[in-house]
Amino acid sequence: MAYKGTNYHGWQVQQNALSVCEVLQNAMEKVWHTRPDVKGCSRTDTGVHALAYCVSFILPKPISAYKLPLALNAHLPEDIRVLSAKEVDEDFHARYSSISKQYIYKVRNSQVANPFMQGLEWRVGCPLDVQAMQQAAAHYVGKKSFASFMSGGSKIVDTVREVFEFTVEKHEDNITFTVTADGYLYNMVRIMVGTLVEVGCHRIAPQQMPAIIAAENRSLAGPRAPSEGLYLSKVNY
Amino acid sequence: MAYKGTNYHGWQVQQNALSVCEVLQNAMEKVWHTRPDVKGCSRTDTGVHALAYCVSFILPKPISAYKLPLALNAHLPEDIRVLSAKEVDEDFHARYSSISKQYIYKVRNSQVANPFMQGLEWRVGCPLDVQAMQQAAAHYVGKKSFASFMSGGSKIVDTVREVFEFTVEKHEDNITFTVTADGYLYNMVRIMVGTLVEVGCHRIAPQQMPAIIAAENRSLAGPRAPSEGLYLSKVNY
Repeated sequence: MAYKGTNYHGWQVQQNALSVCEVLQNAMEKVWHTRPDVKGCSRTDTGVHALAYCVSFILPKPISAYKLPLALNAHLPEDIRVLSAKEVDEDFHARYSSISKQYIYKVRNSQVANPFMQGLEWRVGCPLDVQAMQQAAAHYVGKKSFASFMSGGSKIVDTVREVFEFTVEKHEDNITFTVTADGYLYNMVRIMVGTLVEVGCHRIAPQQMPAIIAAENRSLAGPRAPSEGLYLSKVNY
Repeated sequence: MAYKGTNYHGWQVQQNALSVCEVLQNAMEKVWHTRPDVKGCSRTDTGVHALAYCVSFILPKPISAYKLPLALNAHLPEDIRVLSAKEVDEDFHARYSSISKQYIYKVRNSQVANPFMQGLEWRVGCPLDVQAMQQAAAHYVGKKSFASFMSGGSKIVDTVREVFEFTVEKHEDNITFTVTADGYLYNMVRIMVGTLVEVGCHRIAPQQMPAIIAAENRSLAGPRAPSEGLYLSKVNY
């Protein structure tokens, strides 16, 4: 699925707030007159977007993989689209079967916002040093504790994750951060990007990154980047 | 300026409907406590967007060309942005001094809408034959009457315009039409694109184009494409 997260309180169903999962289940109820138990590939936060979100569920009634997207899209709002479907083994689980997930984060580095990208990127006015951010980002790659990049309120004990890639690319005023890892701590990508933007503004030096990571101390990393620039872009199984 | 036209009834000030010009003048009033007489480079229709809209006006009070965008953007909604400013001769007029204008039109050729492009492109489900559309578009280039591509209700008598380029490009599911002309009749680009989409769906043959143009008869051309895919992209002076 692809969805624009602006109008939703993330993926996960919650009381008193509209989630993407609830809206998907509403559409499923229209098609099948029952609400399947849908497994999502990850919890995304309020305002976070998805280019390729995967879900798994048991079909209440037979329908071809070709027709399924058309049937659900007919009952979904325009900011949520089912892109494709395929039959999988019964033990497949959208979340637990995944090997790694890729996120991208979009920054517009300009004094002026792009009127077509409201809620879809983070505008940073300070001119960013891309080379310094690339040097700093290289320190993220590897298997290590990312406790310095985890927001409070998480119950997670094991803070070790493996980051397979972390790239920073600039095209005109647009800077794209791309990260692939076997898993993520709470708000990890947003804090990693927020820290790199501090590096890009020369408030943190790339050479400080190993110490910031090793400290396992949230207060040493940069601020959390806003949700609007974050996209779940790929789930690998 | 750049603006997302979705929430506006075009450029031109009108009663009982919000226009981009009115909103710009509101911002100017906040900055200078007076409403300058603003000349726009073209009337854009309801829902049409602009990547590079030019306006001219007499400054009520001195301000540097660097500071002007910042001052106005502080009072403009996020879907309208002033990109830059420069001092011009007193006889410059945003509309009458222009030599030619370029528009682009965005089509998404897919069964599935892009949730990030609501109101920003026209989705066409029928698989489009790009080569046929390119062949047909070549017939638009030149100095000729485009009366077949003008909506009713226009008072214009001289329907001759010179089209300098009309290209059709496909990148993945996105098809971009680009046209540059010395002027445009009412709804001309939208009817030209609507006609090409008929060609792309094989309901009109490229070979029919010379006759459709020569007839100067609106009923022979295709339907008018929706406003949401149209962007004023360049004004040449």
